[in-house]
Amino acid sequence: MKFYDFSPAPNPKRVRMFMAEKGIEVPSVQVNTREQEQFSDDYKAVNPHGVVPTLELDDGTCIGESVAICRYFEETHPEPPLMGRDAKDKAVVEMWNRRSEIEGFLSAAEAFRNAMPVFADRALPGVTGDVPQIPALVERGKKSMDRFFRKLDAQLADNQFVAGDAFSIADITAYVAIDFGGRVDIAIPEDCKNVARWFAQISERPSASA
Amino acid sequence: MKFYDFSPAPNPKRVRMFMAEKGIEVPSVQVNTREQEQFSDDYKAVNPHGVVPTLELDDGTCIGESVAICRYFEETHPEPPLMGRDAKDKAVVEMWNRRSEIEGFLSAAEAFRNAMPVFADRALPGVTGDVPQIPALVERGKKSMDRFFRKLDAQLADNQFVAGDAFSIADITAYVAIDFGGRVDIAIPEDCKNVARWFAQISERPSASA
Repeated sequence: MKFYDFSPAPNPKRVRMFMAEKGIEVPSVQVNTREQEQFSDDYKAVNPHGVVPTLELDDGTCIGESVAICRYFEETHPEPPLMGRDAKDKAVVEMWNRRSEIEGFLSAAEAFRNAMPVFADRALPGVTGDVPQIPALVERGKKSMDRFFRKLDAQLADNQFVAGDAFSIADITAYVAIDFGGRVDIAIPEDCKNVARWFAQISERPSASA
Repeated sequence: MKFYDFSPAPNPKRVRMFMAEKGIEVPSVQVNTREQEQFSDDYKAVNPHGVVPTLELDDGTCIGESVAICRYFEETHPEPPLMGRDAKDKAVVEMWNRRSEIEGFLSAAEAFRNAMPVFADRALPGVTGDVPQIPALVERGKKSMDRFFRKLDAQLADNQFVAGDAFSIADITAYVAIDFGGRVDIAIPEDCKNVARWFAQISERPSASA
């Protein structure tokens, strides 16, 4: 088994945190996306979509997409469960993981990809060019993150973790989304005290530095 | 149990197809988003995020997010499995469902929300205003759909269904994404013969009219 990783990138970090929480270790290879190694012929044979991370299984199957890799590990290493225990719990975790991704992570990514000069002509992941940045999306991404912070704050007023009483993949996604947003100066709003409390708490878990 | 639905909207259709494939019937209520009923006080008590669909369980728990609702039904009605049978299969389905959603469905939504006059000041779901349309996103969404069609065509050259040999939630997501794109004149490219073959085949399933 082999994990195609890139240490500074946010999506691989989601999987590394997930693995760290379960105590899973897999040999890894760095695919330096700053050098556009994700578009090399070698890596295209692994993941033709030109994004990291990828998990290559022993039978040669290559799993792309962070949450799909996490799903594989959840099935092969069920303890501790990070995607819920019973039907209702699994649905609640999936709901909050999706909100954290679509409204949090993708909003941070929108602000980031449309702001950084290095992505001038490839403002979406997995493209080699012909996708120009749209400056208005930097502002839109920041406003979407603000809405996400307020939803999350309301949820964390009554819950220790994003999806309820137990740490889950939804905490990982929300944590990495907020950490990612910090790269384009998106900070937790001062009045979102519950988010600040929770973020500080997640930061102290050993997995946060994975 | 109650399903908050809106017949013409694409996200609820994903869940209706999923339920139809499993033979699940749940009493449903229409939330007319064309009349902005998703922002009414009554519906906000069910789903404060102002989007459809939502599944209300008998204990009062409200599950938002289409895939989270599908996850609940997958757990409570495992046959036929629509999210994979074993660890590898579940990961492959999750991978293709995510690609179909992020690269397909969200691209169609991007073109649609930024083109339709009714969404002039609310170009993202779940907002009541202050999110102006960005005309450049209509073109970007269409180009992203084109890339998605080509990825899907390559996958369907060797596979009967989106995630391999078995019909899955990935077929539902891709099918509804393409159907949705049709509303802003995004058609399957003529050279994507595998997509055309597969789309015609899925259209014939009874669940396609759910």
